[in-house]
Amino acid sequence: MKVKRTESGFLVALDVGDEIITSLKKVAELERIGMASLAGIGAVRDVVLGYLDLDQKQYLKREFGPESMELVSLLGNVARLEGEPIAHCHVVLGDREMHTFGGHLFKATTSVTVEIFVRVFEGEISRQFDPNFGANLLTI
Amino acid sequence: MKVKRTESGFLVALDVGDEIITSLKKVAELERIGMASLAGIGAVRDVVLGYLDLDQKQYLKREFGPESMELVSLLGNVARLEGEPIAHCHVVLGDREMHTFGGHLFKATTSVTVEIFVRVFEGEISRQFDPNFGANLLTI
Amino acid sequence: MKVKRTESGFLVALDVGDEIITSLKKVAELERIGMASLAGIGAVRDVVLGYLDLDQKQYLKREFGPESMELVSLLGNVARLEGEPIAHCHVVLGDREMHTFGGHLFKATTSVTVEIFVRVFEGEISRQFDPNFGANLLTI
Repeated sequence: MKVKRTESGFLVALDVGDEIITSLKKVAELERIGMASLAGIGAVRDVVLGYLDLDQKQYLKREFGPESMELVSLLGNVARLEGEPIAHCHVVLGDREMHTFGGHLFKATTSVTVEIFVRVFEGEISRQFDPNFGANLLTI
Repeated sequence: MKVKRTESGFLVALDVGDEIITSLKKVAELERIGMASLAGIGAVRDVVLGYLDLDQKQYLKREFGPESMELVSLLGNVARLEGEPIAHCHVVLGDREMHTFGGHLFKATTSVTVEIFVRVFEGEISRQFDPNFGANLLTI
Repeated sequence: MKVKRTESGFLVALDVGDEIITSLKKVAELERIGMASLAGIGAVRDVVLGYLDLDQKQYLKREFGPESMELVSLLGNVARLEGEPIAHCHVVLGDREMHTFGGHLFKATTSVTVEIFVRVFEGEISRQFDPNFGANLLTI
């Protein structure tokens, strides 16, 4: 993982094998980030996406296999959950036919590179688990 | 709707039942926004998407049912149309199979939460209806 | 192409017939951009998308026909390749059924308008061709 400081945050370039959510948490811990917006692209493999089922109040998960997929879009934010930084990302993947799949990102491993702009804001936002939805919601 | 001020704009966290386009217009009116960029994620229901048909010079619309969908990507901007703030957003939705749908956003109701970063710029940009396309284009 | 200067970069509004990658390169040359993030929406035609095949170490390409498609998402960045500015963009397209396609953007011609926020950063990032992948990777 390479990290370049900018005027308003960081550009994070992940290397092959780096997992996205874990890597973003590491950057957030190291740089003491309490609030940030995220936007990125790249190529990934071994992805787990989620869809929040409001009847079951939990995420349905779907795995995307070992083949590399284009990370067509990653958008999200960094907040704090019980004091720990947590990256909340939604992504769109593209396969070799350019078909797309999308959802809540649980994990994705960099297959070529992932380039994410982390725009850091002063202060902090927090998440809290909401049993009505089965998800960690912002409490700002 | 919860709104947190940042150095460069706002983080808007919509509550269940909040409609996206209407909520963004409210924020823009309240904060006198003349120009902004938008980026967000969340989960929504009762969505209407549009595809601009250049032969008919009007949007074809498609409704997405009462079931919640992941708001996988929202990108767009705020400008002024006849003096009133208007949010122009394109979105990608993900269903429970992680299949995606996308287009111009006419409306979407928050089903869990929607988290949108509003990056405000000084000054103002304007839109004007262009009958050649059937759409409101920027006149910057 | 219309370009509006903002506090942190530019809003680029492309006109019918403007190709995206070429236009972004022009803006980057004119404004001497060494590093920027990109986020945009619009409507395009005559698109070429790519999927990086890691066995062949080259992009598979797919063309999307003459009919206009919604540019549902464009994310990416500007860096330098052999001293020249280069825009690296991934996009999601939506057709008249709101079905989506996505991948690495090789080219796309504006069919109605394309509205891109270019967030410029000080300094410069560089790309270099990596034969292990068949792609230009960041060397920050």
